[in-house]
Amino acid sequence: MFGEVMNGKKQLSRRDLIIGAGKLAAGTAGIAAISAGALGLATKAEAAKKKSSEIPWPYKKLSSGEIKRVAELAHDNWFKGFCTYATLSGIVGMLREKVGEPYKSFPLEAFIFAHGGTAGWGGTCGTLIGSGIAASLATGHKTGEQIANEVMEYYSETELPTYIPDRPKADLKAKSISHTPVCHISVGRWMKAEGIEEGKGAEGIGFLSVQQMERCARMSANMAIRTVELLNDWADGKFRAAHTSPVMSNHIPSQNNCSDCHGQNVPTPGPFGTGLHILGGGH
Amino acid sequence: MFGEVMNGKKQLSRRDLIIGAGKLAAGTAGIAAISAGALGLATKAEAAKKKSSEIPWPYKKLSSGEIKRVAELAHDNWFKGFCTYATLSGIVGMLREKVGEPYKSFPLEAFIFAHGGTAGWGGTCGTLIGSGIAASLATGHKTGEQIANEVMEYYSETELPTYIPDRPKADLKAKSISHTPVCHISVGRWMKAEGIEEGKGAEGIGFLSVQQMERCARMSANMAIRTVELLNDWADGKFRAAHTSPVMSNHIPSQNNCSDCHGQNVPTPGPFGTGLHILGGGH
Repeated sequence: MFGEVMNGKKQLSRRDLIIGAGKLAAGTAGIAAISAGALGLATKAEAAKKKSSEIPWPYKKLSSGEIKRVAELAHDNWFKGFCTYATLSGIVGMLREKVGEPYKSFPLEAFIFAHGGTAGWGGTCGTLIGSGIAASLATGHKTGEQIANEVMEYYSETELPTYIPDRPKADLKAKSISHTPVCHISVGRWMKAEGIEEGKGAEGIGFLSVQQMERCARMSANMAIRTVELLNDWADGKFRAAHTSPVMSNHIPSQNNCSDCHGQNVPTPGPFGTGLHILGGGH
Repeated sequence: MFGEVMNGKKQLSRRDLIIGAGKLAAGTAGIAAISAGALGLATKAEAAKKKSSEIPWPYKKLSSGEIKRVAELAHDNWFKGFCTYATLSGIVGMLREKVGEPYKSFPLEAFIFAHGGTAGWGGTCGTLIGSGIAASLATGHKTGEQIANEVMEYYSETELPTYIPDRPKADLKAKSISHTPVCHISVGRWMKAEGIEEGKGAEGIGFLSVQQMERCARMSANMAIRTVELLNDWADGKFRAAHTSPVMSNHIPSQNNCSDCHGQNVPTPGPFGTGLHILGGGH
């Protein structure tokens, strides 16, 4: 499909691709539906299984009490499988109960690896991977990505964590603004705000402090809550993408605040890669 | 489980947590098996559906011809759903054919959002998210994370892309070493090596150049190939985790080459956060 476009016309924008991907998804669903009919699938169970490969899955709005349970589950599950698993299992755990299948069949442990900015490499915060998966399952890939983008904006520009769990593992004093969705910067800025260094200011360090673990567990709860709030807005027909993905503004996947890490030495000067042409314009 | 550990003993390392998570997974599987028996599930189909929530799923070694098909699918699928979808659908698409369920029911489009370092924010390269999901489905979360870590190491320290697809969208001259799993740095370094700037040196720019898209499509193929090679090693009982996750070395999720981005101004001096104590020791 894109191949045809690409062969006929070498001009192709990422926006075209994204719009095209939406059309493709609709097209694929249509083909699958036709195939299912043509093949005369033997059983309803088999048909149901085929269907779980297609998103969106059913979603039901969660009440404030249910959102509280999502948050508690996310917080507590951090200590079972870290950040991605925490945020994802908080939301999907509640939807397993409220909606049932296909959420019950979804293999939550397959996403544990994305913790700590993916296998502990400090990249994109794992809570945001969990959030994006849950949002995509419930709304489809196009709205799911828009919700992921909004949650990333919230993550980056809000004093966090704000959630106070029922069963905290440590008392926390500080909140911080990460100015990034990147794990190691977000964690580092919060540790500085809390006054924690290795062997100093932290209770009972093995190797991560209990405070840092508790902070990341609360971040998981905060991101699960924000995701469900946006899913509820979407269910009401009220969700609007308020922010543009940085790739659209900067013409390269990126944040908008390059100098925040790179200082004056942004490695790719020029029209893209600097983010400078949109600084001051908000993001 | 961790709660009990945490309440009784405030010392808890991330290594303990990771080991504990493995035990937990085994425990959960055991409980699920007992529950399934006790509840006397009505149908085999229902039992099968329950089971798909648990990993690992069946894996069969792929032949060199099948790995070639994985790579072609990954490359071509980049133009349908970008990097995460490309790598993941390349592997899972082949396993749908070779193994069948539960791969056929897995909702591949739910991971499109993770492209471009997650919704285009330039964080962890989406190919690595796709790789980690596929590896976790096939081997479970513990080995899946080890494979993800090895693929990230390969991504970061290898001259790439090396894969030449059957249906390229553009001719590429350059390979580059990213020294990071982070999308915007990896893309930027390759663009510099290829001599591409916006409106200069690139064929038919809409907004991303065709060359950059082709490069990322080939990266998706390279990561899919590497993942399957490690899955095949695992199937043969030969997989060994050769590298330690940086979180283990640095006591914070991170890369090992902080000064590569931060220069001399690493924001979190001290025993963790700098990576300096292990520089020269390899990673």
